[in-house]
Amino acid sequence: MPELRRDPIVGRWVIIATERAHRPQQPRSAPAPAGGLCPFCPGQEDKTPHEVYVSGRGPGGPPDGPGWKVRVVPNRFPALMIEGELERQAEGIYDRMNGVGAHEVIVETPEHGKSLADLTDEEVTEVLFAFKARILDLRNDLRFRYVLLFKNSGAAAGASLEHAHSQLIALPITPRQVTEEIEGARRHFEHRERCIFCDIVGQERKERSRLVFENEEFVAFAPWAPRSPFETWIVPKRHESNFEAEPKARLGYCAQALRTTLRRIGAALGHPAYNFMVHSNPLRDPSSPSYHWHVEVMPASTQSVAGFEWGSGFHINPVPPEDAAEFLRKVSG
Amino acid sequence: MPELRRDPIVGRWVIIATERAHRPQQPRSAPAPAGGLCPFCPGQEDKTPHEVYVSGRGPGGPPDGPGWKVRVVPNRFPALMIEGELERQAEGIYDRMNGVGAHEVIVETPEHGKSLADLTDEEVTEVLFAFKARILDLRNDLRFRYVLLFKNSGAAAGASLEHAHSQLIALPITPRQVTEEIEGARRHFEHRERCIFCDIVGQERKERSRLVFENEEFVAFAPWAPRSPFETWIVPKRHESNFEAEPKARLGYCAQALRTTLRRIGAALGHPAYNFMVHSNPLRDPSSPSYHWHVEVMPASTQSVAGFEWGSGFHINPVPPEDAAEFLRKVSG
Repeated sequence: MPELRRDPIVGRWVIIATERAHRPQQPRSAPAPAGGLCPFCPGQEDKTPHEVYVSGRGPGGPPDGPGWKVRVVPNRFPALMIEGELERQAEGIYDRMNGVGAHEVIVETPEHGKSLADLTDEEVTEVLFAFKARILDLRNDLRFRYVLLFKNSGAAAGASLEHAHSQLIALPITPRQVTEEIEGARRHFEHRERCIFCDIVGQERKERSRLVFENEEFVAFAPWAPRSPFETWIVPKRHESNFEAEPKARLGYCAQALRTTLRRIGAALGHPAYNFMVHSNPLRDPSSPSYHWHVEVMPASTQSVAGFEWGSGFHINPVPPEDAAEFLRKVSG
Repeated sequence: MPELRRDPIVGRWVIIATERAHRPQQPRSAPAPAGGLCPFCPGQEDKTPHEVYVSGRGPGGPPDGPGWKVRVVPNRFPALMIEGELERQAEGIYDRMNGVGAHEVIVETPEHGKSLADLTDEEVTEVLFAFKARILDLRNDLRFRYVLLFKNSGAAAGASLEHAHSQLIALPITPRQVTEEIEGARRHFEHRERCIFCDIVGQERKERSRLVFENEEFVAFAPWAPRSPFETWIVPKRHESNFEAEPKARLGYCAQALRTTLRRIGAALGHPAYNFMVHSNPLRDPSSPSYHWHVEVMPASTQSVAGFEWGSGFHINPVPPEDAAEFLRKVSG
């Protein structure tokens, strides 16, 4: 059983997960496996745990068979375990609990070799709708406080399998990174009675120098203080704290903004490895006037996180966001 | 001029430093350069900016000549610039200031190809004494609030030159990573009137399962919630908040603990790339009963920081600290 441990000084949680050392690693430029060795390919459904969500398979099609468009399965090498109680314990001045949580894989397309950016807007919408469906299901499990949705694309961004997929981890704790955003947004709201993300969207749309893409409902822009070159945020224009509250029609606009951003980053930087993370309000808070869900896209940087970043939390970024955004506006994705 | 920008939501600062993109990169397994091409080697002193500290050169030896044991020079490709005023400015809801600061390189030995762990205890003491001398000097510059000392060793840990060196960055802001530690320690002190680091040292010395090394004055141990495998902290047993307050004799004990830790990590993991960071109280606080300076050593992980870590601040560590410490206790470094 993995274990959650809390640093007693800063409150940072760490997952001690010995099983993770044994997961398989595909070589960096793995070709599409011949003979269907990829566990995410159609026809290989028995190579994964039983699916927990599927879209596109017609009625009457048996579970764990082919014919799907998006398929969600538990991770075979999970960072956290779905079974068990939390059992919070002290060990002297330290805190631990069982590593209870869900770790799932969202297979974004049946086609091996297609990337998320290669899909149509409608197909990306189906992926986002799968995200929403999984949050709505996992929120029924009262052990969980947060569902983090994220994608590692490419070996340099931490992906161990090539077939296009994203992941979710349901956690018994709201992560510090999210808590800090929520608290920062709350402080702004207390002073000004406005959502800081709404203010940011307003300023970015007015200034336009950091704007990458915009449609009726969403805006993509390089944030004012990006941690790494070409970091891009995708934010709904209308205030909404919870990703899972979005109707499918609005997820379609988000899909277009996400796909356009990924295509342009791919064209501009030669299809780099990248991560994206969905930041949303915690599961037990149905709605907040001060917090605003969004997606953060981070192309993997050639600069590793080194001593200065580890020691300070500062990041050194050689590319101003205005330059990155101009480049992404001009490139044809 | 580089620029400091503050994220308006969480208060994270980023250095936008366009010049950094142009610094030279040595290939990963660069051999000792023939013909003295390394700017940190004796005889090449004119390849660096003028030295700001030197030890070991006899009286009367001219500056920027050979004969030194430890030499500190400004970084030729600094992340921050030493000249200029801060000029704090608002841009709508955003904050910026000029990227004013010092960025220096501590050349740890004249011998190209020797690592810090290869030096004697006395030589490592000279390096730590150079750290102290630089803090004491930079603290006279009232623009600076913090000096972060750190080392990137090996390309995978962010080093761009092979010759053994560490770095310091003097900052006009106390970094968030340090502020969080200081505030966490202060909360503990308010509740219990004890330093949390002193409590941790006490528990680690009693339990011994995470202990790596100990001498009269310092203890090296794997922390309870390590971010990555074989993370090791070196902490003075006697309470002291400020690194620069330590007398040379105590720095000698620290040097022994640091060198022993680095040797054992090298022997255990096949001389991995690593980072270390010195966390100390801010420059303007001469002494604190609740904070406690220390060194954090982090071997570069084969697991990159990926979407989950970026999005949550959680780290997934496959090696329990008790296992790592046992391994480091048994290996002969």
